[in-house]
Amino acid sequence: MAQLPFFSLPGMVADVERIEAALVASVRTHDAYLSEIASHLIVAGGKRLRPVLALVAAQVAGGAATDDAVQGGIACELVQTGSLYHDDVMDEAPTRRGVETVNAKWGNLQAILAGDFLLSRASEIAASLGTEVAALLARTIGRLCEGQIEELRHTYNAARPESSYLASIAGKTASLYATSARIGGIVAGLDRGLIDALTSYGESFGMVFQIVDDLLDISATDDQLGKPAGHDMVEGVYTLPVLRTLQAGGIAAASLLGILGSPLEVAGREKALEIVRANAGVPSAMATAREWAARAVAACDPLPPSDATDALRSAPDALLASVV
Amino acid sequence: MAQLPFFSLPGMVADVERIEAALVASVRTHDAYLSEIASHLIVAGGKRLRPVLALVAAQVAGGAATDDAVQGGIACELVQTGSLYHDDVMDEAPTRRGVETVNAKWGNLQAILAGDFLLSRASEIAASLGTEVAALLARTIGRLCEGQIEELRHTYNAARPESSYLASIAGKTASLYATSARIGGIVAGLDRGLIDALTSYGESFGMVFQIVDDLLDISATDDQLGKPAGHDMVEGVYTLPVLRTLQAGGIAAASLLGILGSPLEVAGREKALEIVRANAGVPSAMATAREWAARAVAACDPLPPSDATDALRSAPDALLASVV
Repeated sequence: MAQLPFFSLPGMVADVERIEAALVASVRTHDAYLSEIASHLIVAGGKRLRPVLALVAAQVAGGAATDDAVQGGIACELVQTGSLYHDDVMDEAPTRRGVETVNAKWGNLQAILAGDFLLSRASEIAASLGTEVAALLARTIGRLCEGQIEELRHTYNAARPESSYLASIAGKTASLYATSARIGGIVAGLDRGLIDALTSYGESFGMVFQIVDDLLDISATDDQLGKPAGHDMVEGVYTLPVLRTLQAGGIAAASLLGILGSPLEVAGREKALEIVRANAGVPSAMATAREWAARAVAACDPLPPSDATDALRSAPDALLASVV
Repeated sequence: MAQLPFFSLPGMVADVERIEAALVASVRTHDAYLSEIASHLIVAGGKRLRPVLALVAAQVAGGAATDDAVQGGIACELVQTGSLYHDDVMDEAPTRRGVETVNAKWGNLQAILAGDFLLSRASEIAASLGTEVAALLARTIGRLCEGQIEELRHTYNAARPESSYLASIAGKTASLYATSARIGGIVAGLDRGLIDALTSYGESFGMVFQIVDDLLDISATDDQLGKPAGHDMVEGVYTLPVLRTLQAGGIAAASLLGILGSPLEVAGREKALEIVRANAGVPSAMATAREWAARAVAACDPLPPSDATDALRSAPDALLASVV
């Protein structure tokens, strides 16, 4: 049985090799300079969770993953990668996946253009899979932007409502997981009911993914993260464990309120982390992640029994286990 | 007869109103903040040359422009606008179309995201017009990036080969004009031969457009441009009149070489402008623009006689006339 992050399915190791080869091929262009920039974060690696989800979704009714499923999956991965290129410009991030970011290595202009190029390649692949996939992927890119804009609007706002957080992660993260699973179902020619169930699964899985990611930024060590913990608070992005700590009131909330609201130096970051880690915000956010995981598992009810369906059912718990 | 920039066709004024209404509707989203940012440069106006070209192309065999032609045209305009959002971030431009740029007014992060959002809306509209249009628009966005990367690669390179300039403007400008005209032909259901002729027309028209734009940056007054002339040289983008001046050799080329190669202050810009204006680079570049205009007119040969075909034939000369 393949040991892949979160999704375990026989034959998946070979399928991931197909994904890697197709990804590298997808960004090749006659311009060697652009090819190098556009493939930089792709060759740096990554868990490929979105294409893996597309391939697993395409196999819930049995059968092997087709080339169309691979192409659908890499279209989603290219959207994710293009969006990372733009994120890293916005964050002025120096490293990602253990390598220099594109903006740090070549410059912001190159990173913006190469990000656009990756999005265009994703759209081109989606168009080759039909108008439904093309329209879905385009709409999803729009939702990513909406989710990120929602986050931006509340940067450094300690009164950020929880509804803003949930709407933001639904757009910036869950929508692309939903689309990965949906495209898998569409290209596999599944019934509409199954396609909708897969979409709902992907959406819930994506919510778990982002809440877990936000929890790790609080609870993991700097070594595990490869960057200082509490980075989101430093940048003014107040995520679920922080908002729950504030909602709980009392001395902890009051102390945290006194620190948040503007960029943090090292001492402020450490103090804020200490408060959030010691209070009910983390287990409370974890409970919400568990609720979304339960929704993802329940979304599998209409799916036919298969190894792929089992892989979908097990993945949310495996993801939750990565926090502890 | 409607007095529109370059393309004169009966009924075009009403069609441009359809374009304006569809453009504004296309960027409306449930998020008021994102809608405001995404519509900022659209409501600031613009010549709408790409959608106008799509509408004229759709009418070369007679008949009125359909809603699909309007949608195809605005997909191209949204690509252009999204790409301006990203350009202005890259150039740190303060104003555009007489208003503050998005990056100046809201910030770089917002401008990058809203640019991505505009591109996603363009792709969504393209998908609604079928896989051929969706694939074509996606490929065109990729070509815009290739053209801009080619330009970036030679920034401040006074030895930039003319082939680099031509490849860059073919990608960053002509490809989108070619696609505007092609989409007009596709949605009008024209024969393949006519669609190819329209594409060739758009490509040549786009080459004229960019060479003219680059000539204006040299020969127009600051008032006409709304910014200091010679801006491209200041930014290290050496365009055709500059490259031709350098190619001609002699004292002018030697003096210009002594100035170019790094960012220019006011005195350097004025001296460089004086040299390029006084020498053969400008008429030589103009001659090349005329050659492309002749190609555009020749591309109309297979088109059926119609008001729209006449409008296409007249447009390149009208564009050339804007330089003097």
